Amino acid sequence: MADEGRTERGKRLLQSLYSTVGERVLDSVEDIAPDLRSYITDFAFGDIYSRPGLDLRAREIATIASLTTLGNSPRELRAHIHGALSAGCTREEVIEVILQMAVYAGFPAAINGLEAAKEAFAEIDEIR
Amino acid sequence: MADEGRTERGKRLLQSLYSTVGERVLDSVEDIAPDLRSYITDFAFGDIYSRPGLDLRAREIATIASLTTLGNSPRELRAHIHGALSAGCTREEVIEVILQMAVYAGFPAAINGLEAAKEAFAEIDEIR
Amino acid sequence: MADEGRTERGKRLLQSLYSTVGERVLDSVEDIAPDLRSYITDFAFGDIYSRPGLDLRAREIATIASLTTLGNSPRELRAHIHGALSAGCTREEVIEVILQMAVYAGFPAAINGLEAAKEAFAEIDEIR
Amino acid sequence: MADEGRTERGKRLLQSLYSTVGERVLDSVEDIAPDLRSYITDFAFGDIYSRPGLDLRAREIATIASLTTLGNSPRELRAHIHGALSAGCTREEVIEVILQMAVYAGFPAAINGLEAAKEAFAEIDEIR
Amino acid sequence: MADEGRTERGKRLLQSLYSTVGERVLDSVEDIAPDLRSYITDFAFGDIYSRPGLDLRAREIATIASLTTLGNSPRELRAHIHGALSAGCTREEVIEVILQMAVYAGFPAAINGLEAAKEAFAEIDEIR
Amino acid sequence: MADEGRTERGKRLLQSLYSTVGERVLDSVEDIAPDLRSYITDFAFGDIYSRPGLDLRAREIATIASLTTLGNSPRELRAHIHGALSAGCTREEVIEVILQMAVYAGFPAAINGLEAAKEAFAEIDEIR
Repeated sequence: MADEGRTERGKRLLQSLYSTVGERVLDSVEDIAPDLRSYITDFAFGDIYSRPGLDLRAREIATIASLTTLGNSPRELRAHIHGALSAGCTREEVIEVILQMAVYAGFPAAINGLEAAKEAFAEIDEIR
Repeated sequence: MADEGRTERGKRLLQSLYSTVGERVLDSVEDIAPDLRSYITDFAFGDIYSRPGLDLRAREIATIASLTTLGNSPRELRAHIHGALSAGCTREEVIEVILQMAVYAGFPAAINGLEAAKEAFAEIDEIR
Repeated sequence: MADEGRTERGKRLLQSLYSTVGERVLDSVEDIAPDLRSYITDFAFGDIYSRPGLDLRAREIATIASLTTLGNSPRELRAHIHGALSAGCTREEVIEVILQMAVYAGFPAAINGLEAAKEAFAEIDEIR
Repeated sequence: MADEGRTERGKRLLQSLYSTVGERVLDSVEDIAPDLRSYITDFAFGDIYSRPGLDLRAREIATIASLTTLGNSPRELRAHIHGALSAGCTREEVIEVILQMAVYAGFPAAINGLEAAKEAFAEIDEIR
Repeated sequence: MADEGRTERGKRLLQSLYSTVGERVLDSVEDIAPDLRSYITDFAFGDIYSRPGLDLRAREIATIASLTTLGNSPRELRAHIHGALSAGCTREEVIEVILQMAVYAGFPAAINGLEAAKEAFAEIDEIR
Repeated sequence: MADEGRTERGKRLLQSLYSTVGERVLDSVEDIAPDLRSYITDFAFGDIYSRPGLDLRAREIATIASLTTLGNSPRELRAHIHGALSAGCTREEVIEVILQMAVYAGFPAAINGLEAAKEAFAEIDEIR
């Protein structure tokens, strides 16, 4: 029961935040590491994102800041920009978070992050 | 006038967010790089943190996420934990942001960040 | 039942690999983030390290390589050096893994890793 | 004599581990930095990988862990996945090493590494 | 007046070092973060690069070393290779700086940097 | 003969740039990885730093930029600050290189680098 709880909570959250975008990130390695999907669903979303104490809007802001700082996954950054908008952030807020990273992670990281945002916004405009 | 504007805005913000804690970070290199203080005051706070479009609570959440991810400055992370609390975050929210970084930057980064939070909270309890 | 399985598996593994050393890493943030211990026990050890397909000796070699490359947690690196020796690695093998990181992560990372190894070996010699 | 020893040892090792794949990584910058090839052959392979005390299977596991953690060279990661298989690792072992990096370097690094593995496996299947 | 000073100094420097290449880096995010251009012009070039105490040739060498080490922006690295040549560096000097990074940031970072240099040199040869 | 050439060149360079400071960095891991000293002497200094095409002053500037960006070894950064001064840099030039890293690696990295510079200058003043 407890484990189903995590999985169900994680799935619901993933679906509500990223719609089909999050799924696509996970599809890419489904065939060689099928359990990865359940770790992300159960642990990242069922355990961590589901914790009380911080709203989803703030969680997505934190993740966008981290992914801009890391700079290793523009695809995952784009997915979380979708998530941030789903959680109630404005596009302007997303841009401000990324721009601010110039102070901590340097200008190249911020510029790369802004390009990912531009692409994420274009993807959303296309879907509409 | 414009330049005084940045400096004044930056100073006011630094003072309101970090009280004397922020000053101490800058004191350490004052003698060998005196202009660094004005770059941080004018650019980081007078330009970036003063921008409309994102409230200070969200800005501090983004910075805590970035500094936990980078892991290169526990001292600056502690100062921004002070700032987050000044901007209206709860201690629980600060802990949640750092804990969530386990997903993106790995567990060691999250553990280091939580230790910085523990120290920042202890510093604040001492001052009171 | 499933969840107990993860927890029990993780605890047994943690105990067999790190004895009391691993516990101490987690003690440090127990008070401000009590759930972190269960995430590490259940997810990192109960889920990941317990997977078939790679023996524990190889898992610890991979972790030592990663922590030397990251360079953000000499304490966790020392704990995994204990784990590598528990899993059957020789001290020479631990040193070789870290030294090789000079090629990929640079000499400073390798030197820092070797210092952590020296400290871990000294801790072990003291216990004996 | 001594220097020839390093070069010969390095060349033999490079050839046995990576066949023609390793060469291609070095071809790309041959024209602007011709000495790089000899540094990698002589130092990385003639000196480091040739050291006793750690078998090649373990050396490739350590390198795959490091390159997944760094995330800066999917091409070099793919070459070392070839090397790991040449040194006796199974595909499952390669996947396990990369998946485990989620714990230390975060999920985005692990996902990127798994994609490189998928591509490396496809390259090998094509050659056959 | 003071602020115009920074902007004018920064613009002149950007133009003299990178000609139209630098502009293109900034064009990409102009529409979603128009102020980024002025932060880079005013702060990075008007404030930092304009400081006395270090000549532009040495400044570009330092930046090439940093961008090779970071590895997060081959495009910005290419722009600064243009800048280094404009400031009086030879192509050989650019290659030497990047090659040396193998010692500190590892071989993969150096190889990536050398590829960026090769592309930057080809761009320059094409313009001529 | 060739190998002695590298070793002799490397030793002479290490001695001339860092005097006894460089030795101390290597002393720390001498007992557990005695060959590391020869790799640094022979490869880093005998091969790389001895290459024509870039003067030692520029090489030390590049290394200070890289170590400030990496932030993983304040001790090695201090040693290279000694090296930069030996190679003809002024203290002001060292400070400028580190300060400039705020643009690429972020302010926390630059502040940490400036603290290392302050300590290196104090060490030198003490010796005199």
